[in-house]
Amino acid sequence: MINKLTAKIQKTKAPIVVGLDPMLNYIPKHIQEKAFKEFGETLEGAAEAIWQFNKEIVDKTYDLIPAVKPQIAMYEQFGIPGIMAFKKTVDYCKSKDLVVIGDIKRGDIGSTSAAYATGHIGKVQIGANKIAPFDEDFVTLNPYMGADSITPFIDVCKEEKKGLFILVKTSNPSSGDFQDQMVGDRPVYELVGEKVAQWGETCMGDDYSYVGAVVGATYPEMGKTLRKIMPKAYILVPGYGAQGGQGKDLVHFFNEDGLGAIVNSSRGIIAAYKQEKYAKFGEENFADASRAAAEDMIADIAGALEAAK
Amino acid sequence: MINKLTAKIQKTKAPIVVGLDPMLNYIPKHIQEKAFKEFGETLEGAAEAIWQFNKEIVDKTYDLIPAVKPQIAMYEQFGIPGIMAFKKTVDYCKSKDLVVIGDIKRGDIGSTSAAYATGHIGKVQIGANKIAPFDEDFVTLNPYMGADSITPFIDVCKEEKKGLFILVKTSNPSSGDFQDQMVGDRPVYELVGEKVAQWGETCMGDDYSYVGAVVGATYPEMGKTLRKIMPKAYILVPGYGAQGGQGKDLVHFFNEDGLGAIVNSSRGIIAAYKQEKYAKFGEENFADASRAAAEDMIADIAGALEAAK
Repeated sequence: MINKLTAKIQKTKAPIVVGLDPMLNYIPKHIQEKAFKEFGETLEGAAEAIWQFNKEIVDKTYDLIPAVKPQIAMYEQFGIPGIMAFKKTVDYCKSKDLVVIGDIKRGDIGSTSAAYATGHIGKVQIGANKIAPFDEDFVTLNPYMGADSITPFIDVCKEEKKGLFILVKTSNPSSGDFQDQMVGDRPVYELVGEKVAQWGETCMGDDYSYVGAVVGATYPEMGKTLRKIMPKAYILVPGYGAQGGQGKDLVHFFNEDGLGAIVNSSRGIIAAYKQEKYAKFGEENFADASRAAAEDMIADIAGALEAAK
Repeated sequence: MINKLTAKIQKTKAPIVVGLDPMLNYIPKHIQEKAFKEFGETLEGAAEAIWQFNKEIVDKTYDLIPAVKPQIAMYEQFGIPGIMAFKKTVDYCKSKDLVVIGDIKRGDIGSTSAAYATGHIGKVQIGANKIAPFDEDFVTLNPYMGADSITPFIDVCKEEKKGLFILVKTSNPSSGDFQDQMVGDRPVYELVGEKVAQWGETCMGDDYSYVGAVVGATYPEMGKTLRKIMPKAYILVPGYGAQGGQGKDLVHFFNEDGLGAIVNSSRGIIAAYKQEKYAKFGEENFADASRAAAEDMIADIAGALEAAK
């Protein structure tokens, strides 16, 4: 799957991922009203609204981009109907040949992590059948519980040719509370980065590993260091746009081959129609605004990479 | 909810929680066969089997125990039908007046953590309606992303009188990979424990805080230190039984009032019928074996606490 991701990034010339993190207040009124009319102001109604919203954005952007990243929290908040919308979104994006990164940030001990791995990127054995329950292509993971929380996922990756992005340095303001604590002369996130590199060596694709890392765009200096610590890890970079990161901050997340990083934008693309810059599209044409925002993001990053050459 | 948990522990004299973590291979053949006959060897069939298994264990133990802890990974591995069985289990346990600890170990940045908090212990606003999607009483959380991953949950706790258990020192063998790293002369888990104590001060019940901690039974010395760092935090203690912890290891997790800790056992109770000690019950009467194992666990811990007086 890392080979597919790399190939798709090269083909689209777009090292970006669209975060499908729908909040109800991002969703245009006409979509909400239609969904509520059919299902009421219920979990089912909200789930229908986010699914229709996602579908239109995917329809208007799938040819530009290599991958999407649905954030499962935004679906879990609508209970079981929400999770059904998550699964519908995963399946629909895969039908459009997009790589799907399930932003699930799971992490637990051995057999429990194995259950998450089976559920999200593997197949579960039920009697004589093997069934893929959620079937994302990649998932994000939290490493706080250590190696035995990660290795069950690596085992499934090897078997199913799927991939991981492990939280190393996150984009949020208080990511430093524990990640930046100094262990001797090095911060915790560097130790996690070293582990990611080690885990990654055990399951390599052609040029990059199946085991990638999450490093926030909001910390470009740390990105530079971590790029060196994990040369074969794809870095998933959140924090572009709404969280403050810009193209020029991102150049050191990439390797000299122009690969090795994929930059996420969620709000900045899916709710672009709410920005002054894209207001001309109007709420009805929200997905055209998303397309324009994706094009601008691709150009911003390409320009920054070109300027850094 | 922390007051309810404390009251129920005092009433049952049982500072224990039964981990409802059903694996298919724990589930007696007659239950699996019945479920597969009705739904096929499908996700729906597996979900029906785990639900029927849970229900019988709850029916046979609910009067002995204050709380249950369903591990959502074991349900997520069966996709959407699995999560429906999770929700049915939560609702059924609440109908039996059990305190339900959702073992979800979520953790993400601000608005995303807020979505998880809303989904699991809060209410989501949909049009004019406020709906509680999963409605557990407590959830477990992963602190790696720092304060802004936790505070949205604390806000919901205050509003809904629900509670949290934050991972401090987990029970698994490689929990030390990052949790034990020394920051100056102190390990990371102590820094996390201090934060838990601080967060806890902002939302106190009568004697204990709504913000508790997870500390593994497998590390009794660390439990002793953490007990002092977080005097007002309830400690959820996994790792008893199958993972190697025993009653005598647990005494320092408790405060002098005999409260402050709740010890989890999953396999040791729900799959007790597979142990030689409880084999006499037979597979058909697996839930009677679970009841006997719960009684033994309660006696083991009571004996250890008595001996330590």
